[in-house]
Amino acid sequence: MKVLVVGANGQIGKHVVSLIQDSEGLEARAMIRKEEQAASFENLGAETAVVDLEDDIKTISKAAEGVDAVVFTAGSGPNTGKDKTILIDLDGAVKTMEAAKAAGVKRFVLISSFDTRREAIQAASESFAPYVAAKHYADEWLKRADLDYTIIHPGRLTNDKGKGQVHAAVEVERNEIPREDVAAVIVASLENEASIGKEFQVVTGNTKIEEAVASI
Amino acid sequence: MKVLVVGANGQIGKHVVSLIQDSEGLEARAMIRKEEQAASFENLGAETAVVDLEDDIKTISKAAEGVDAVVFTAGSGPNTGKDKTILIDLDGAVKTMEAAKAAGVKRFVLISSFDTRREAIQAASESFAPYVAAKHYADEWLKRADLDYTIIHPGRLTNDKGKGQVHAAVEVERNEIPREDVAAVIVASLENEASIGKEFQVVTGNTKIEEAVASI
Repeated sequence: MKVLVVGANGQIGKHVVSLIQDSEGLEARAMIRKEEQAASFENLGAETAVVDLEDDIKTISKAAEGVDAVVFTAGSGPNTGKDKTILIDLDGAVKTMEAAKAAGVKRFVLISSFDTRREAIQAASESFAPYVAAKHYADEWLKRADLDYTIIHPGRLTNDKGKGQVHAAVEVERNEIPREDVAAVIVASLENEASIGKEFQVVTGNTKIEEAVASI
Repeated sequence: MKVLVVGANGQIGKHVVSLIQDSEGLEARAMIRKEEQAASFENLGAETAVVDLEDDIKTISKAAEGVDAVVFTAGSGPNTGKDKTILIDLDGAVKTMEAAKAAGVKRFVLISSFDTRREAIQAASESFAPYVAAKHYADEWLKRADLDYTIIHPGRLTNDKGKGQVHAAVEVERNEIPREDVAAVIVASLENEASIGKEFQVVTGNTKIEEAVASI
């Protein structure tokens, strides 16, 4: 299974490409914004595709040609300019969904934020609300997009070493999770078709990642 | 026919309430953000409802109870903080759609911007693109919302006195249009069910507004 990793140069994305290249049955194509980011992925034996998420669907679609799944883990982050929030976190995600469809790719794994329900937009601080709204609409769009989706809602991200154990369910108590474990949850989702059509929150816990994903 | 005008205190909204109150068969309920904006609408004999578009769907829904149609002409404008663009132009519009449905109101007229196609997001300047994207997704959401919609895409808005004559079609050449004429196009759309399920661009032209709307 070949997987296009959108946002490969991000903090989660780098772990995802690395885990995919270490896996048995998966191969990564790292979608990156700049040519100079390519070398580190090529060193892992991964393919690369240089595309900007502000490019059009056709350009993104070319990067998705011949893959079996797309992982979207790009993000402007909550602290970039607000102008990028809607263009990357919402429009970039939706364009990638349309690009996947255009390339005939059905499987789509989206990394969302912990709580993207309507109530969470309302409850968010003024500076965080636009980010939650962008994530909310990206998630809602994917659920209506006729793709084999999985939406992952990780808790507060840390750079701790992965623990390999998580708690995953439709709703869990808010907690931390290392980015490395989020990447492992992504790979476990790709490897388990039972995650298709599901969305779940995930934080550090007591269940092995493969088991946690299988039990969703 | 009673019409909830969302964004009544805006430049187009004021014209809409005034034209509705002058019409034969329509009555307005002006949805406004602040109590002190109520007097001018009450002087026109219009009802008022004080609701903030950042309130929840339930609150907006109460304002829509008992009306036959909703006109959404609120907007953060292209020059407000980018954080408001997604919260008002997209999320405010979508919450109003959901509120209309919750209140059992089927008819929904949305005032969009001139060109909200995907290509227009791409073509827009960096500072304008987030606004176009928010409008794009609001339009797309409405088309999928199971409401009796009309989406109006006016040209460059001016404060000139209304001319009463426009050119309206799916695509027209970009040009100006007085806000007063946009308001008249809204009222003509409310009065003509042939506009249901349609979206059109409109600029100053040579056809009487009622005829132009009827010919869409």
